[in-house]
Amino acid sequence: MESVVGYINSNKEKYVEELKDLLRIPSISTLAVNKNDMITAAEFVAGKLREAGMENVKIIETKGHPLVYADWLKAPGKPTVLVYGHYDVQPVDPINLWDSPPFEPTIKDGKIFARGATDDKGQMYMHIKSVEAYFKTVGKLPLNVKFIIEGEEEIGSGNLDEFVNKNQEMLKCDSVLISDTSLYGPGIPTLTYGLRGLCYMEVVVTGPNRDLHSGTFGGGVDNPINVIAEMISKLKDNNGKIKIPGFYKDVVNLTKKERENFKRLPFSEKQYAKALGLKVLKGEKGYTTLERVWARPTLDCNGIFGGFTGEGAKTVLPSKATAKISMRLVPNQDPKKIAKLFTSYINKIAPKTVKVEISDLHGAYPIATSLDDKATLSAATAIAKVFGKKTVFMREGGSIPIVVSFAKKLKASPVLMGMGLNTENLHSPNEHFNLNHFQLGILSSAYFLDEYSK
Amino acid sequence: MESVVGYINSNKEKYVEELKDLLRIPSISTLAVNKNDMITAAEFVAGKLREAGMENVKIIETKGHPLVYADWLKAPGKPTVLVYGHYDVQPVDPINLWDSPPFEPTIKDGKIFARGATDDKGQMYMHIKSVEAYFKTVGKLPLNVKFIIEGEEEIGSGNLDEFVNKNQEMLKCDSVLISDTSLYGPGIPTLTYGLRGLCYMEVVVTGPNRDLHSGTFGGGVDNPINVIAEMISKLKDNNGKIKIPGFYKDVVNLTKKERENFKRLPFSEKQYAKALGLKVLKGEKGYTTLERVWARPTLDCNGIFGGFTGEGAKTVLPSKATAKISMRLVPNQDPKKIAKLFTSYINKIAPKTVKVEISDLHGAYPIATSLDDKATLSAATAIAKVFGKKTVFMREGGSIPIVVSFAKKLKASPVLMGMGLNTENLHSPNEHFNLNHFQLGILSSAYFLDEYSK
Repeated sequence: MESVVGYINSNKEKYVEELKDLLRIPSISTLAVNKNDMITAAEFVAGKLREAGMENVKIIETKGHPLVYADWLKAPGKPTVLVYGHYDVQPVDPINLWDSPPFEPTIKDGKIFARGATDDKGQMYMHIKSVEAYFKTVGKLPLNVKFIIEGEEEIGSGNLDEFVNKNQEMLKCDSVLISDTSLYGPGIPTLTYGLRGLCYMEVVVTGPNRDLHSGTFGGGVDNPINVIAEMISKLKDNNGKIKIPGFYKDVVNLTKKERENFKRLPFSEKQYAKALGLKVLKGEKGYTTLERVWARPTLDCNGIFGGFTGEGAKTVLPSKATAKISMRLVPNQDPKKIAKLFTSYINKIAPKTVKVEISDLHGAYPIATSLDDKATLSAATAIAKVFGKKTVFMREGGSIPIVVSFAKKLKASPVLMGMGLNTENLHSPNEHFNLNHFQLGILSSAYFLDEYSK
Repeated sequence: MESVVGYINSNKEKYVEELKDLLRIPSISTLAVNKNDMITAAEFVAGKLREAGMENVKIIETKGHPLVYADWLKAPGKPTVLVYGHYDVQPVDPINLWDSPPFEPTIKDGKIFARGATDDKGQMYMHIKSVEAYFKTVGKLPLNVKFIIEGEEEIGSGNLDEFVNKNQEMLKCDSVLISDTSLYGPGIPTLTYGLRGLCYMEVVVTGPNRDLHSGTFGGGVDNPINVIAEMISKLKDNNGKIKIPGFYKDVVNLTKKERENFKRLPFSEKQYAKALGLKVLKGEKGYTTLERVWARPTLDCNGIFGGFTGEGAKTVLPSKATAKISMRLVPNQDPKKIAKLFTSYINKIAPKTVKVEISDLHGAYPIATSLDDKATLSAATAIAKVFGKKTVFMREGGSIPIVVSFAKKLKASPVLMGMGLNTENLHSPNEHFNLNHFQLGILSSAYFLDEYSK
């Protein structure tokens, strides 16, 4: 490990320059205009895997954006680790709130600012540099490694999911190593053992067959915006409980031990609120904030629009109103079942004065892994060594749908060794990544491969 | 009257040719490119007023497009009528939906197709031809007449409003005659005696200081979209009553006679709903559709936006949500007072978890004239004679702010003697004006001057 670690420590600046090149590619998976940038990003990743020393590097076409695969399988008898990450990023709007252009990586106070810096280009790239360090020093890896890097994580990983279904032998592994989550705090070695799932719905309410003059028609017909607002108001009660019948039926409650673990973590509601510019927090009654965001299901409007959305006044009575509404799920809620319950409830509360169309835009299963798993224990040891502190175990409020897919279909243990911070504006303007954690992440990846090979 | 009527009837074709000349001028007030066309149109109107026999014809410069003034004040002891109209028109886009070019007037099935045909060139021009008929036959008018024709109605009449403030003596009159509204139906003599007012508000709800990842933070903080939806749901009850305390306090209820008048009008809820693509209508309980849209106050969201409004799914927990909410008002509601009541109520129902900002974007006073007013009675008699049917009295759900300005500042009775039809595509492609109504309108104008002089 000494030479590996030495190599990593002496190449720090080179790594940052390479990451900048990757961050310059505007690989926004949801926008058609960036289709070619997706290919550029995939080719960049493939090139770096090849340079690192990985074998069988391939760009695999899908119905959407391509996958990048690589492997090195010359450690017979040793476990196989599948490294997963994604090269796609979220859209950048509202662009005017960025202090530096989202695709011109800018370093300030030891942080690199760019869309995708922490989610997930920076974190994914750590593992490429970790295997490179082995190849460039000891000439081989301590165990078998496969890489599968996708370009559709931000839009639901649909094509990778299908690929996993059809290529279980190709992707076969003992553990899936993923860095797409956060540390509990700066410098705190953290393993994430649970992820929430997701059920993301769109509701379109249509009233009159065209936009109407609000003077001529106002008062005579129902208004789709007022209707959708009324329906949204019926989704949660005053205690933050979701009112969809059956919604909580499959929820596995937190154990006493888990709640105690969470309570021991340093956390200040006051500071949390202050950092978000809030005077008061609000969530489900009977739970702490950490419990609410990590291990309780929730419902949020992610977007709403209808009628006149420009500056000033236009006296229009809109034909349509649209809301994007998503629910975060916890084990053992099933996104498909929840989508059905949501749809039934919306149809039930929809008035007859309008037409309501409901689409299931995307879903993800929740997951929580055992704390006694070998891969998990190896990872905990590895990061404790690198950070020089005891590893803490947390859950994560977000969803990484493909983690569940890997775990279920490949029967592999997921290791969520995230090096991000939830203050790093992922999905928001001024996304960034702490370059110290970037470096510690490369080291942690290398130590994990070593520990897990033992 | 015989010679006046004879003159009008024998000049029918000449009137249409003159109207065509006026309609050929692309006087779109909102477009800078048409600035010179505005002057051409004003000069055309001034020239026709002079030819007709009016005196003191002037083009009055404003900060925007010019006003055209004329008068004839040689009937001492007789009332004074101020004729108001506008020579400006709406833009023509989408141009590809016009069957004939918008500024090449085309006659088909007794209708003249062109931008401005019904709104308002055709209707305004009727009054110039009416006074001309008097001058060319009996050599004088039966009462005093002033004309004020503006070029900024379609952009808010801001400069005319200021001109009225400063020139009350110049514009002094007993009644303001306006043809810029609709008949209840083809061939039905109609007087519009009420207009609704407007109070247009904007509500901005701010939660966290930036857009957040809905996985990481969802459940931990309140959501501005959910909050604004909840607040909107509290603005009206299930019976369509507005819940803002004091909102109905100044409302003058419809009289029994007015309600009977409305009930006698031919109206089919079923056809009304069908034309709008609706299965069911909805409005304030206890009122018919005509009452709801003409004479009851109402509240509608005109626009809403927040969070992700693009295609597909973005798992964002938004920082802000904005709603544009307007209330149509009826006599004697005061838009400024209503804005205050709205603001107090919103502040009262806003939760402490968010910041709420409320702006008053725009207001207009409602108006309804007495059915016993002398000018109104004269107009009713005049059009009944011309159409050979009893006049119907209706109200209009929209607002024409300048009418209220005339009524209040000049202490004059407005006479809304519209000859348009709300099916004549005003503000849309293929705007047109029924030439039979054009001719009946000239006669109605002439008969009104006669009746009102008695």
